[in-house]
Amino acid sequence: KKILVIPGDGIGQEVTAWGQKVLSAIAENFKHEFTFEEGIMGHVAIEATGNPLPDETLEKARKSDAILFGAIGHAKYDNDPTLKVRPEQGLLKIRKELGLYANLRPIKLFDELLEASSIKPEILRGSDILFFRELTGDVYFGEKNRTADRNTASDLMIYHRYEVERIARKAYEAARTRRSKVCSVDKANVLEASRLWREVVQEVAKEYPDVETEHMFIDNAAMQLIKDPKRFDVVVTGNLFGDILTDEASQIAGSMGMLASASIGDSTGFYEPIHGSAHDIAGKGLANPLASILSAALMLDISFGLKTESQRVIKAVEATLRQGYRTMDIANKHTENALIMGTDAMG
Amino acid sequence: KKILVIPGDGIGQEVTAWGQKVLSAIAENFKHEFTFEEGIMGHVAIEATGNPLPDETLEKARKSDAILFGAIGHAKYDNDPTLKVRPEQGLLKIRKELGLYANLRPIKLFDELLEASSIKPEILRGSDILFFRELTGDVYFGEKNRTADRNTASDLMIYHRYEVERIARKAYEAARTRRSKVCSVDKANVLEASRLWREVVQEVAKEYPDVETEHMFIDNAAMQLIKDPKRFDVVVTGNLFGDILTDEASQIAGSMGMLASASIGDSTGFYEPIHGSAHDIAGKGLANPLASILSAALMLDISFGLKTESQRVIKAVEATLRQGYRTMDIANKHTENALIMGTDAMG
Ligand SMILES: CC(C)[C@H](C(=O)O)[C@@H](O)C(=O)O
Ligand SMILES: CC(C)[C@H](C(=O)O)[C@@H](O)C(=O)O
Repeated sequence: KKILVIPGDGIGQEVTAWGQKVLSAIAENFKHEFTFEEGIMGHVAIEATGNPLPDETLEKARKSDAILFGAIGHAKYDNDPTLKVRPEQGLLKIRKELGLYANLRPIKLFDELLEASSIKPEILRGSDILFFRELTGDVYFGEKNRTADRNTASDLMIYHRYEVERIARKAYEAARTRRSKVCSVDKANVLEASRLWREVVQEVAKEYPDVETEHMFIDNAAMQLIKDPKRFDVVVTGNLFGDILTDEASQIAGSMGMLASASIGDSTGFYEPIHGSAHDIAGKGLANPLASILSAALMLDISFGLKTESQRVIKAVEATLRQGYRTMDIANKHTENALIMGTDAMG
Repeated sequence: KKILVIPGDGIGQEVTAWGQKVLSAIAENFKHEFTFEEGIMGHVAIEATGNPLPDETLEKARKSDAILFGAIGHAKYDNDPTLKVRPEQGLLKIRKELGLYANLRPIKLFDELLEASSIKPEILRGSDILFFRELTGDVYFGEKNRTADRNTASDLMIYHRYEVERIARKAYEAARTRRSKVCSVDKANVLEASRLWREVVQEVAKEYPDVETEHMFIDNAAMQLIKDPKRFDVVVTGNLFGDILTDEASQIAGSMGMLASASIGDSTGFYEPIHGSAHDIAGKGLANPLASILSAALMLDISFGLKTESQRVIKAVEATLRQGYRTMDIANKHTENALIMGTDAMG
């Protein structure tokens, strides 16, 4: 298997190395052959080549079986919204070019982290949500405009029937292997794109009479997610709403530093932590590498069908947490005998 | 003062009566003269006239000094996204017609409800956030399109400089009377409309060097709001992001049933609970009337400048909670000697 590693920006550089080491260890232990290549993307790529996604990286991506990605973004661009070339363009472009239309974000709480969340343990216990975020459409990819006088700016929120259909099917298929519930999130009381979304999901739902369907407005969903996370099984939603809800849902898992995601579509799978580049702690060796390691576990499972190997990684993470090892983000005063450590020690 | 009462749909019918009764009681006790008229809007207006905002209601609205509104929406339309005439159009139209561009949503926890939230009390204690949600722009009001084959749908997310400027100024002015912090929320790493938003807020910020400014991406904000609500003082954001964040923030106040909002702009102020029509409990006498009563308190303060009267209402709500009176939504097992009651008893 050919794996492309793209550490990207900020803490991506620190954590991705650990996802890769875990893949190597699995290869060695289970006698698989994984070959690794490295690619650049984001701010680091802009600095090196002027392009947030150099052709060379895209070429390597197309030839690989799976990609392990770190994070993207840099304070320089966040502070200056007028800059034309921006790191995030690299990530959006690779998602589009590789046809990665389905972003899977499993939100599962490790028992050991029940106390690391700001939400009450009795609300959290037993939560297990699988998000399907549409990843190559919506206001992210619709036409952008800025008037010549720079005083008006717009982005087109747009969805096509086939885009909704294919992600909805993926969500319903997954629901069948879980608790058979799908919650589709939109803002159909206001947005035309959401009304199309709801119509199509209602149609797809008919093909899955064994799966229970619920439609929820995004504002209500943002509230229910915190109020009663256990009511959700599979959640399917658009690109923008999915971006917001999954970051919010990170509080269900104790910390964003624990969450992995898989982006799949036509062929190559793309695996990344849902945390960002975290400029504030970058380069300090404090970042939690577990989301990258769990992204590697998702790769083993989804792209390579190596379920035993994937479980081995997840069990190792569990065992590590059980022994009290914590990075800063998941440590709190409730952890007895917590052994607080940096990225490399945790890795 | 002329007050227009628009109960609207669902539980709006039940709770708004109580906001009005409180206004009457204040008038009587403090010797003010309030005259009330009633107007229809939403599903009830569609049923009666075919129009979600009949001209007659709009006329009355223009002639009134303030409006007390209930809620809008009905399951019929939620279940059928193809319906052309929809209740929410009435609410969006009145906001636009009255120029209600600033929606203020104060999120403050009553000490008595510390345990009613799904978030840990130690995280919540001391939270006090004032949201400024832009209310007459964004993807809510941009051009909507559906192709003839019905397979593609879009909404234009659009902002003009002056729209961002005026809401930003309101937020900074308010911050000066509070803890002097403004957090502006956008998605400037992806959206052009957000980049304009950020540029304009950065400019306005220069006029308020005494106020601390922070810019946050919406995904991160949705997470931070739950992780550490105390870090926020004034939050200013666009229409869509504001819709999502304020519903989410209701968990900070224990329940959505407690939250009031004020929409202000050119002249007439518009006051409404942030909860919706809640079809599931409508007509059962279970809804919490406190958000409507607190909306009346906001009206007294903001539209009429009657601070003492407004405080009297808030103190009455506090005293009621302190005595253990609870509607269903704010009762929980931690409330000792809770006296659980319906809408009218609580009112
Ligand atoms: C970095 C940014 C463009 C990206 C997104 O919004 O999709 C990130 O927030 C994510 O969720 O992967
Ligand atoms: C009912 C709906 C149109 C409305 C909105 O989205 O603005 C509501 O959710 C609100 O927050 O006032």
